[in-house]
Amino acid sequence: MSSVAPEPIRWVNERLELLDQTQLPEHVVFELQTSLETVYMAIRQLKVRGAPAIGIAAAYGLVVAMQPHRLDGGEAFYNALQSAADRLRTARPTAVNLAWAVDRIVRAAQPAGDGAARYRLIKTAAEEIHEQDRRMCRAIGRAGQHLIKPGAGILTHCNAGALAVSELGTATAPMYLAHAAGIPFRVYAGETRPLLQGSRLTAWELQQAGIDVTLICDTMVARMMAEGAIDRVLVGTDRVTRNGDVVNKIGTSGIAILARHFGIPFYVACPSSTFDPATPDGASVVIEERDPDEVRRVLGRAVAPVDVKVRNPAFDVTPHDLVAGFITDTGLLGPPFDQTLQRLAATDEATKVQRT
Amino acid sequence: MSSVAPEPIRWVNERLELLDQTQLPEHVVFELQTSLETVYMAIRQLKVRGAPAIGIAAAYGLVVAMQPHRLDGGEAFYNALQSAADRLRTARPTAVNLAWAVDRIVRAAQPAGDGAARYRLIKTAAEEIHEQDRRMCRAIGRAGQHLIKPGAGILTHCNAGALAVSELGTATAPMYLAHAAGIPFRVYAGETRPLLQGSRLTAWELQQAGIDVTLICDTMVARMMAEGAIDRVLVGTDRVTRNGDVVNKIGTSGIAILARHFGIPFYVACPSSTFDPATPDGASVVIEERDPDEVRRVLGRAVAPVDVKVRNPAFDVTPHDLVAGFITDTGLLGPPFDQTLQRLAATDEATKVQRT
Repeated sequence: MSSVAPEPIRWVNERLELLDQTQLPEHVVFELQTSLETVYMAIRQLKVRGAPAIGIAAAYGLVVAMQPHRLDGGEAFYNALQSAADRLRTARPTAVNLAWAVDRIVRAAQPAGDGAARYRLIKTAAEEIHEQDRRMCRAIGRAGQHLIKPGAGILTHCNAGALAVSELGTATAPMYLAHAAGIPFRVYAGETRPLLQGSRLTAWELQQAGIDVTLICDTMVARMMAEGAIDRVLVGTDRVTRNGDVVNKIGTSGIAILARHFGIPFYVACPSSTFDPATPDGASVVIEERDPDEVRRVLGRAVAPVDVKVRNPAFDVTPHDLVAGFITDTGLLGPPFDQTLQRLAATDEATKVQRT
Repeated sequence: MSSVAPEPIRWVNERLELLDQTQLPEHVVFELQTSLETVYMAIRQLKVRGAPAIGIAAAYGLVVAMQPHRLDGGEAFYNALQSAADRLRTARPTAVNLAWAVDRIVRAAQPAGDGAARYRLIKTAAEEIHEQDRRMCRAIGRAGQHLIKPGAGILTHCNAGALAVSELGTATAPMYLAHAAGIPFRVYAGETRPLLQGSRLTAWELQQAGIDVTLICDTMVARMMAEGAIDRVLVGTDRVTRNGDVVNKIGTSGIAILARHFGIPFYVACPSSTFDPATPDGASVVIEERDPDEVRRVLGRAVAPVDVKVRNPAFDVTPHDLVAGFITDTGLLGPPFDQTLQRLAATDEATKVQRT
């Protein structure tokens, strides 16, 4: 067991290895990516997941794909890159980060030069995307680390961890920094039905890092709060609207309401890029309704009548008045959010990690 | 698909059939009980579950066990019955209803008479236990039926249904009566991790009865309430303390807090026997902590690291001030519960179905 978060993406000596998250936690398998097609399938089959991680994997994937073209002329190299990029974008057509990272790599190869020169440019661009993500996580960690007091119990939901992002994750970043600083604390990971990201991913990655983690079912949150086991809630988010409403994994809003009932501060960790000033509030957000079989089945095994009616909203909206603060790469932002969140909008667009 | 609730216990022409609930919802199998041992194993292996259902099955089980002894003399019959009773009590040593029903059958055979006469006495006693349970369910149904308005959305949790009791169940009794009266309404069944009684049992039994049921994950309760889909919560309970605190399946207290947040009335259905005036409040109740593998696994399949720490409280406590009313066989009881619940304590002890 190491004392750092597991990295889902390894880039060493220009070799790319991706952790196959579909096999977690039973099997920890890093797959060497040898071609565009292996990266394409890894993204398509959700072996890599989490918006930032997908972008980073795609960027490195293009670098791997172009390794056989280093002796080509500049124009041939660029044409091959464009065709690889077109293919990779279709691996998950709705993933904004995928398209953003692919475009950035293609742009990096535009200056004149032969294949070898352009290869160096895209390799540097991919490494920059990765490094920028790491910096973002570290900044979030620094902004939130002081929220974790010695002996505290922290509840998190879903996986806004190292597996979804890079290095430190978002909601987990303050935890990894506090752990590295030797602060003793406990984390409660809610299993997060239907897809069980909490049990499959968060419990696993925190355990790997040597953090004291306890897995609970989603039904147990109120009981743990009533027992006094929880001092803070820290979750990630997919989108923050202009007024500070939080769109995140289904179950988040219920936890926020329970936290308010028990007087427990509820914090949301996110990069600036998740702030969406174009959307006025949570009520304006269309919530994706997913496959009913995710609820009727667990890991392929039927747990309910095969034809029973199901609701399966993937996300919910936590009203801004239940949020104690946003832990961001530009600092900890408290209410009134319609004012403080504007700081995120002011962040340089060009360096943003895009929202999914 | 019938329009009545499925009966977990069938007693026709002095033949006992038990629904094997461990195979639900995939397979609907009624097993003919031919001896004391088959009934013993059905109870031990949780094929029959729910306190009242276990009591009824045990009572009929003793009748089946004594069928070969009908030509015995009175004393031989009684001795054989006592030894069968001793065996059956050990099927689930902590199930109060099991011991209570077994004792009642043994007492019924105490008057003088030959084997045939005593057999008739225990058969009648078993049928009375069953009928008394049916009457209790119907009384709860009548007390709560008016709470289900046309077009309403009702949320329930776990299984306090026909499968756990007999005929109408407790929390489901008002639903079955409203459905029989032609009132259109929707039920949302929370899946109830870790053991999934909501998806495996409640969704199945309501669907069998032709009631409009929608299955949701426990994470989706707040979202459904925020959408306005839920007008009432109806749950069962394992124990009600003197001040009206409710001990029920883990997850119940969280639902009650969410219901309060959204202004949705939260009702608890229960027979008089669940009222426990000897326990002052929920804080005095020791909550059973169950096997961590129930959380780490789903129906035998691993969903988390095999050695991850787990909390697995089986029950939680819903404070009385979150309860709008108790739907009981002696009527609908509203606050102040420290006064109104005394009516339950006054119920004739001798006719009580015992608490588990």
